[in-house]
Amino acid sequence: MNFTISHIDGNARTGSIALSRGTISTPVFMPVGTMGAVKAMSPHELLDIGAEIILCNTYHMYLRPGQQIVAEAGGLHKFINWHRPILTDSGGFQVYSLSPLRKITQEGVTFRSHINGSTHFIGPLESMEIQAALGSDIIMAFDECTPYPSSYEYTLKSLELTTRWAETCQKISTANQTLFAIVQGGVFKDLRLESARQLIDLNFEGYAVGGVSVGEPKEMMHEIIAYMASELPPDKPRYLMGVGFPEDILAAVEAGFDMFDCVIPTRTARHGTLLTTHGRIIIGNSRFRVDHTPLDPQCGCYTCQNFTRSYLNHLYKAGEILGIRLNTIHNLYFYLDFMKKIRTAIEEDRFNSFKKAWLTASV
Amino acid sequence: MNFTISHIDGNARTGSIALSRGTISTPVFMPVGTMGAVKAMSPHELLDIGAEIILCNTYHMYLRPGQQIVAEAGGLHKFINWHRPILTDSGGFQVYSLSPLRKITQEGVTFRSHINGSTHFIGPLESMEIQAALGSDIIMAFDECTPYPSSYEYTLKSLELTTRWAETCQKISTANQTLFAIVQGGVFKDLRLESARQLIDLNFEGYAVGGVSVGEPKEMMHEIIAYMASELPPDKPRYLMGVGFPEDILAAVEAGFDMFDCVIPTRTARHGTLLTTHGRIIIGNSRFRVDHTPLDPQCGCYTCQNFTRSYLNHLYKAGEILGIRLNTIHNLYFYLDFMKKIRTAIEEDRFNSFKKAWLTASV
Repeated sequence: MNFTISHIDGNARTGSIALSRGTISTPVFMPVGTMGAVKAMSPHELLDIGAEIILCNTYHMYLRPGQQIVAEAGGLHKFINWHRPILTDSGGFQVYSLSPLRKITQEGVTFRSHINGSTHFIGPLESMEIQAALGSDIIMAFDECTPYPSSYEYTLKSLELTTRWAETCQKISTANQTLFAIVQGGVFKDLRLESARQLIDLNFEGYAVGGVSVGEPKEMMHEIIAYMASELPPDKPRYLMGVGFPEDILAAVEAGFDMFDCVIPTRTARHGTLLTTHGRIIIGNSRFRVDHTPLDPQCGCYTCQNFTRSYLNHLYKAGEILGIRLNTIHNLYFYLDFMKKIRTAIEEDRFNSFKKAWLTASV
Repeated sequence: MNFTISHIDGNARTGSIALSRGTISTPVFMPVGTMGAVKAMSPHELLDIGAEIILCNTYHMYLRPGQQIVAEAGGLHKFINWHRPILTDSGGFQVYSLSPLRKITQEGVTFRSHINGSTHFIGPLESMEIQAALGSDIIMAFDECTPYPSSYEYTLKSLELTTRWAETCQKISTANQTLFAIVQGGVFKDLRLESARQLIDLNFEGYAVGGVSVGEPKEMMHEIIAYMASELPPDKPRYLMGVGFPEDILAAVEAGFDMFDCVIPTRTARHGTLLTTHGRIIIGNSRFRVDHTPLDPQCGCYTCQNFTRSYLNHLYKAGEILGIRLNTIHNLYFYLDFMKKIRTAIEEDRFNSFKKAWLTASV
């Protein structure tokens, strides 16, 4: 991996992450393909909307179909027919959020599958093995994601465990995959800084901030965003995991983050919530029944170029899969276009005014 | 509409139906877009697989979104963004098969919506009005579809009512839509012939055979197929409604039918049943977990060109929409390709041997 910064505007920056499977322009949004498919999208549609990298979940691919099958298929890229970069997470977050039962030791986590209740164990060794079998381009060190709320004492012990696990991951990861570490520390600023310091000492190729957007008040998340980026090495990609709404991404870019992933655009699309530059649209709302205009006249996506709000309302009411598809294409296009506008604003030294104008228009 | 026969092989024939929005090669299979969308498909994907005409259901479009909204949108083609020909059925079949309550008079049918239980009335006048508002290219005369079993006496009275309704439809239909009549008569050969005679006397532009595949034994359906086509005018398109499996279509083409529609390829796809030249595949079957070959190596569809059985098995198990999409693309491509092979075989005077080879290979 080669990370280059091309322009800095305040703390916001544009750059590129060069990987063997392709180069990513940052700040970047990564569509989420949890189980080896970005929900409702084909890989060719992802190319069409300009996705440069997607995220897949190690936990899900481990449970089903299993990394062995993916490896036999020639790796995740071949299995899902997506040949640009893939980032896989560590499995840590899902082990805590999805498993009905888990037990943490120094070696890793014993947990139950959310699919069939079977018992499994993943630690740093296992996470690296799974991600190696998947063959993703950027891999994440196995971490403990502390829930909100957690005590100061627990959070301190936990971040130290995360550091030890990250060290283990670093020792066994191979050169053909790029390993990022995940900063934890909950909502405690000194613990966040301590976690960052410990991981920076180990010198990873990139740094993620995990354990945010896990139920803490939004103001707390924005505080973490505000002080965290500047504590991470300026010459390495900074990745804010699982965030968020456009306004959250604007705050994080302003602070100096480079990478984002979130299920918001795809999940809300499936439930009929569509994002436009003038705010959110609930497409099932009866006023759209007779609205024969495009969803967003300024949008260049397939949905807005070819269909009307009235038809999208009809498809939503009728429960048609095509409705879910068209909504998803729009929301993902909207996010990727949003990131492109952010990059342009930074390049033109007007990120601050862009951010203000965006927040005003979308209210 | 201009119907031209290009080649005859036994009773099977190839031809073309020229309509203002496009020309259809016959024998043709029409994908079913019940509620204004072929389930899981985009209109551009339908173009990609070579669909020349689709069917939409008058009953469904009437109930939701309502023909007024479609008319305001500029007609069904504009509303759903499909600019090749559309055939709409009469609404007759759905009134009988979906409504929880119905009352038939000489003027039409009072029924309850399967969506919200509200009371509605559709007769020949209403059916023509709805289809005119939709603006479909081929429209169907309103009929009574007699259920199986029905008595001889009831079926006789019913087919006479269908004839009177067809006459009414003919009087009020306009020149920019092509009106087909629907032959009824249940499983009684003399009544089928009587229905055909009465409708042929009225001189429609095309003739459909309705009321088949409504629960009667398959042999009875094949009997009707075998004698019915030759009773219909040779110079008009012959349409066998709602049929069927490839073997049924082969029998019907052999008898001289030109047009088909059926939900089988799309519905079975959603449930993971995939059609290949070597028989059906249940993609959820565990032996496909580790099968890294294409679904059908001889198939040229997007699914077979880009994905493996193992990935399709994974998507099916994971309940991913992409799985439904890829399965649907394959099955519809398979049907359209099957019709193309049928047309080629007829043109080359080898339909009979083609049929035999097909039935042998697919067992």
